[in-house]
Amino acid sequence: MAQTPSIPKGTRDFMPQEMARRNYIFSTIRKVFQLFGYSQIETPSMENLSTLMGKYGEEGDKLLFKIQNSGDYFKGITDEELLSRNALHLASKFCEKGLRYDLTVPFARFVVMHREEIAFPFKRYQIQPVWRADRPQKGRYREFYQCDADLVGSDSLMNEVEIIQMIDMVFSSFRINVSIKMNNRKILAGIAETIGCPDKITDITVAIDKLDKIGLDAVKAELMEHGIDAAAVSKLEPILTLSGSNEQKLQIIESMLSGSEVGTKGVEECRFIFNAIQNFSLKNNLELDLTLARGLNYYTGAIFEVKALDVEIGSISGGGRYDNLTGIFGMPGVSGVGISFGADRIYDVLNQLDLYPQDATGSISILFLNLGEQESACSLKLLAQLRSQGISGELYPDNAKMKKQMSYANARGVRFVAIIGSQEMEQGTVSIKDMATGSQSVIGQSEISTLF
Amino acid sequence: MAQTPSIPKGTRDFMPQEMARRNYIFSTIRKVFQLFGYSQIETPSMENLSTLMGKYGEEGDKLLFKIQNSGDYFKGITDEELLSRNALHLASKFCEKGLRYDLTVPFARFVVMHREEIAFPFKRYQIQPVWRADRPQKGRYREFYQCDADLVGSDSLMNEVEIIQMIDMVFSSFRINVSIKMNNRKILAGIAETIGCPDKITDITVAIDKLDKIGLDAVKAELMEHGIDAAAVSKLEPILTLSGSNEQKLQIIESMLSGSEVGTKGVEECRFIFNAIQNFSLKNNLELDLTLARGLNYYTGAIFEVKALDVEIGSISGGGRYDNLTGIFGMPGVSGVGISFGADRIYDVLNQLDLYPQDATGSISILFLNLGEQESACSLKLLAQLRSQGISGELYPDNAKMKKQMSYANARGVRFVAIIGSQEMEQGTVSIKDMATGSQSVIGQSEISTLF
Repeated sequence: MAQTPSIPKGTRDFMPQEMARRNYIFSTIRKVFQLFGYSQIETPSMENLSTLMGKYGEEGDKLLFKIQNSGDYFKGITDEELLSRNALHLASKFCEKGLRYDLTVPFARFVVMHREEIAFPFKRYQIQPVWRADRPQKGRYREFYQCDADLVGSDSLMNEVEIIQMIDMVFSSFRINVSIKMNNRKILAGIAETIGCPDKITDITVAIDKLDKIGLDAVKAELMEHGIDAAAVSKLEPILTLSGSNEQKLQIIESMLSGSEVGTKGVEECRFIFNAIQNFSLKNNLELDLTLARGLNYYTGAIFEVKALDVEIGSISGGGRYDNLTGIFGMPGVSGVGISFGADRIYDVLNQLDLYPQDATGSISILFLNLGEQESACSLKLLAQLRSQGISGELYPDNAKMKKQMSYANARGVRFVAIIGSQEMEQGTVSIKDMATGSQSVIGQSEISTLF
Repeated sequence: MAQTPSIPKGTRDFMPQEMARRNYIFSTIRKVFQLFGYSQIETPSMENLSTLMGKYGEEGDKLLFKIQNSGDYFKGITDEELLSRNALHLASKFCEKGLRYDLTVPFARFVVMHREEIAFPFKRYQIQPVWRADRPQKGRYREFYQCDADLVGSDSLMNEVEIIQMIDMVFSSFRINVSIKMNNRKILAGIAETIGCPDKITDITVAIDKLDKIGLDAVKAELMEHGIDAAAVSKLEPILTLSGSNEQKLQIIESMLSGSEVGTKGVEECRFIFNAIQNFSLKNNLELDLTLARGLNYYTGAIFEVKALDVEIGSISGGGRYDNLTGIFGMPGVSGVGISFGADRIYDVLNQLDLYPQDATGSISILFLNLGEQESACSLKLLAQLRSQGISGELYPDNAKMKKQMSYANARGVRFVAIIGSQEMEQGTVSIKDMATGSQSVIGQSEISTLF
């Protein structure tokens, strides 16, 4: 026998039940995107490497899956180049295309390519796999889905308000309790400016983030290690010990940042969003959190991150406001705000909390056992009727032993087993076994749709 | 300005309206698969090249997209090998993985890998993209979707009957009139055997297929060119001039093939299927067609092909019965029957016949114009209510000129435009413009859901 085949490490097969659960996740997110007016687009799995390279840093370039050119990919390469064995350099000769690494760069490329066809503001969502040649580990795959919604071409803070509503609707649909954390890049810039270290935003944010774990003194020590002097650190103290309601926090920050234009702007933005969101009864808590440091090179205003409350897991959703999506492709001034849902982590949370709806099983409503040719013909007629009413079902295809057919019914997790034997044929009936309760009954064939 | 970015040739971006139409196609096919008890699976985009190579012939190996190994892919390759510049040989050193070429080989690999977890008979469907490094041309892409359903682990002809019902339900759902053509590999084998040329199945089938175009004499001449002697050709004549109902055709073939065991088996199979299908009122015609030659190396029983009646286009669906899905991976005896729907061609047919349902637009039900901050807040509240009722809508995010907002409404193809200005705020009303009829009305804010 040949060697049992396998799949590349870091990739996955999805069995029917996993698919049913994943489809539940995608369709829930998709439905919310659609309710808020986002339209779906898709981009090719492959992009030109010139589109992808240099967009994710040096490390990212290495993590791109590159596709070898068809035909004679050695053309135009000298023997010396070949013998140099410079893997990265020669990859750019052997390969013109790569698999997409995220949905953001392809979206930026899409906006630039189709700018004449798009009606701005453009609200798009995209649910597609991405690929990264990362070292696979638990919970980290080389192929995984991203679910992104972005609105580009509008500076209105109403968009941030709607993003928060979307996050809230997605997670309340899933019945996952979350904390929606919000920060603002402008506040962070204001803080760094105010203490006289405008280039230390990241260090400050990372240090603040450790407060709970290592305590105030250790944080101060760390800040000084990063070259922030004692006077600056003491100015930071109100931030480090920030507490209270969102409004209380904002008041403290506001007075601290009164001398910084950008900081004051950040406080105003946050306050507008908190005020506007009060018009809606969110199911989850929205919290100002100055420790959010995601995408600091990219985001320019609000930053969002979502944490599940009942499961220990990292962020399960995140996003923010950016000012320059398409500058890398020579089209400046395209600002927007976006949100990304982590389908794989949401899958883990739903599994751990066992929150899937009953029908996310990928199973069927009814299985007819096969007792012979004539009986099957009769079963198929009833099945045709049920299917025309949107009820899924099947006939066991072979006249196999009862035990085998019933064990298939169990394995498939069907709701009802239907039996038409010679007696049922004669009497125009069908015997029904409810697989959930184990109860059995005999009903008229014409009544079969009343089961559902 | 940087060069405008582009996408690799043979690939496509899908705009919102195209996506809405594609989603309509996929969801229609998916719904039928589910009604018939098929469960969805997914396999990784990448497979090991050892899984893919040699499965699609020599030409197919060249059309595989190969993914360059990460890290130092020159390791273990000698200078001599490198300088040989043997593109195909070195590809197998540089690359361990490739993009899937179809859904059949990955499915076979899946069945072998998961045979202990699967409940047989196993009914799976799969809707995923495949990639081929083919020369792109009109209607042929390097990335395209396949929609396959297969049932493995059952020899029952009931499965063929259900496949035909599925085809009929898919195309009647689309309102595309089709001819469902059926052939049987065993009949073709019986014919070749009967005329004494068992190895000439393909030549005979291809020649029969030309009858309409080139006439009887030319077909006979072509058969003789292929080394089939005059006596054999004259034995073939009843097949060449076959006409009448399916049953009439079967009677002629039956008497001609009475001396061939395999041929007689093929006739019996066809007759069983035609008889069983009479229990169902098919919307489309099922026709015995001996010229079907698809997958002759692969199929062993029934062969199906579907042609659209009102549009000139090739086959839009096809499938058949096979005896040995997984032998290539060392697991013999897995027989099954499958069907594949060509989403891209169905898309072209629906476009040409303009058969999309009205709601396959990717648009929203209502757009609120933005007349200022307070008015927007009021609009967002109504939107929250509508969305909780499953109605999609949005607020134009900026307080832009009316003309700009209305031209966005037009471009988006929204159904209703809602306006809340100061007067409407005061009176608790909302002005509605029906974009289909152009009619305008004023309704109470609490009545807004009655629009839908």
